[in-house]
Amino acid sequence: MFEQLGLIGCGLMGGSFALALKRAGLVRRVVGYSKSPSTTERARQLGVIDDVASSALLAVSGADIVLIAVPVAASEATFKAIRHLVGPDTLIMDVGSTKLDVVQASQALGERQNCFVPAHPIAGKEVAGIEHADADLYSGKQLILTPTTHTGASQLQRAEAVWRALGCRVQHMSAEAHDAAFASVSHLPHLLAFALMNAISAQPRAAEFLALAGPGFRDFTRIAASDPQIWRDILISNRAELKTQADHFKAALQALEEMMARADGSGLQSLITQASQTRASWHMNKLQK
Amino acid sequence: MFEQLGLIGCGLMGGSFALALKRAGLVRRVVGYSKSPSTTERARQLGVIDDVASSALLAVSGADIVLIAVPVAASEATFKAIRHLVGPDTLIMDVGSTKLDVVQASQALGERQNCFVPAHPIAGKEVAGIEHADADLYSGKQLILTPTTHTGASQLQRAEAVWRALGCRVQHMSAEAHDAAFASVSHLPHLLAFALMNAISAQPRAAEFLALAGPGFRDFTRIAASDPQIWRDILISNRAELKTQADHFKAALQALEEMMARADGSGLQSLITQASQTRASWHMNKLQK
Repeated sequence: MFEQLGLIGCGLMGGSFALALKRAGLVRRVVGYSKSPSTTERARQLGVIDDVASSALLAVSGADIVLIAVPVAASEATFKAIRHLVGPDTLIMDVGSTKLDVVQASQALGERQNCFVPAHPIAGKEVAGIEHADADLYSGKQLILTPTTHTGASQLQRAEAVWRALGCRVQHMSAEAHDAAFASVSHLPHLLAFALMNAISAQPRAAEFLALAGPGFRDFTRIAASDPQIWRDILISNRAELKTQADHFKAALQALEEMMARADGSGLQSLITQASQTRASWHMNKLQK
Repeated sequence: MFEQLGLIGCGLMGGSFALALKRAGLVRRVVGYSKSPSTTERARQLGVIDDVASSALLAVSGADIVLIAVPVAASEATFKAIRHLVGPDTLIMDVGSTKLDVVQASQALGERQNCFVPAHPIAGKEVAGIEHADADLYSGKQLILTPTTHTGASQLQRAEAVWRALGCRVQHMSAEAHDAAFASVSHLPHLLAFALMNAISAQPRAAEFLALAGPGFRDFTRIAASDPQIWRDILISNRAELKTQADHFKAALQALEEMMARADGSGLQSLITQASQTRASWHMNKLQK
């Protein structure tokens, strides 16, 4: 049980965490801050936070748990802004989709680096904003922790306990392994979905094409509607790993295109079969969890 | 009301059409043929077809409506196989995802070309086979007809009426316009999903990566599990239009990658915003229909 959550960033992810923590009876009071005063006020009106802080620093004042839920490029400035009011036992977490950059940024906490436990919940929606905050967002989802060499044992233990209490399956990884894996199964698919939408909308007959799009297109492009600011930061922050993954993808695409150009039916069918079987067995494994 | 449906190809698409037609009380008897005798027998056991024909030709004998639901590359051989028993007033349709090639193949019908109405229902599942046939598959879906210069007025009118009766929104297009549009919003997304799965599975850490994939990956890759034989034919049949669309896609991907490489946050954000807004307004339009 925590006394006070300092929530920095009142968007979908942060707001959902506050709501989930409250519903689980794990926190007495939530003090929120976000860059836009109207957003913070809206969060208060919606009952996501109890009090508005006028700065990130004041949101941390008196908090025994702090969640940083801002676009990842804003992490370093946030750590710098709060470091002077972080207590020695405070638990600080983030929810960013990249981890190496956040670990790097957390050096700004100086002698309070022990407080920080980098966290990445594998959850989201294609809509952003506090209005869509949802106490169930994290329930049943995977949660990755990438503790640093500075992370305190007590903080790590509390971080695990909080996410477990919200219904997450908690897993530890290195920040490096995390960023490589998510470049492959999350950041690259987003990049491809953005590119597909732009490729279509750049054509004169875009409206005609889009009017014919069906359920396959709907599912494939759902992630293209993701929040531009959040994803700008993720793609730039993880661009080295993402480039590696994009190169793997282009080689695989090239192999398919060569079979098509040669009208090599059996070669093409075996490449599609490989893709189809990989997807089918992935799905089967997920269902069994 | 039809007396007899000759169903050639007893898979998901053909089986679903037979079930839907029966449920709507639009056909008295369904005679089915498929290349694999065990599939045809299974279709009979499941009640999708009433009688088994031992050849495509015999499935057409006495039929006043014929549905060809085979991989598109098998279209020409099918037209050749059935042409001698097609009556002058018979309605013949297909359900292929490409149309120019099927229109071309339908010349094999010779003086019965008036009977053929090329059709493409925008419906599907990521699972294939007669076991997944579903009387509701086409309900509420779009259905494209691409009549040829030979298509009879009476056949076209009956084709429209049948699909409307099954709950489809029917639309006419040229085969050329159809193939360009579907290269963009269907065939290309499938190609990209296949390439992504193969790019991941080719890497030594594939299993570790896939274990971390979440809901965004699930939706993005759903179409990668599509039937390899069906999609082999679609990709090869429509390869010219698909190459055009793949080139548009690569240019859009390149633009995003350049912004990432330069760490150009505002440039990247504006490209993502464009993608995000295109997707969001597409979705809004769909919901209003």
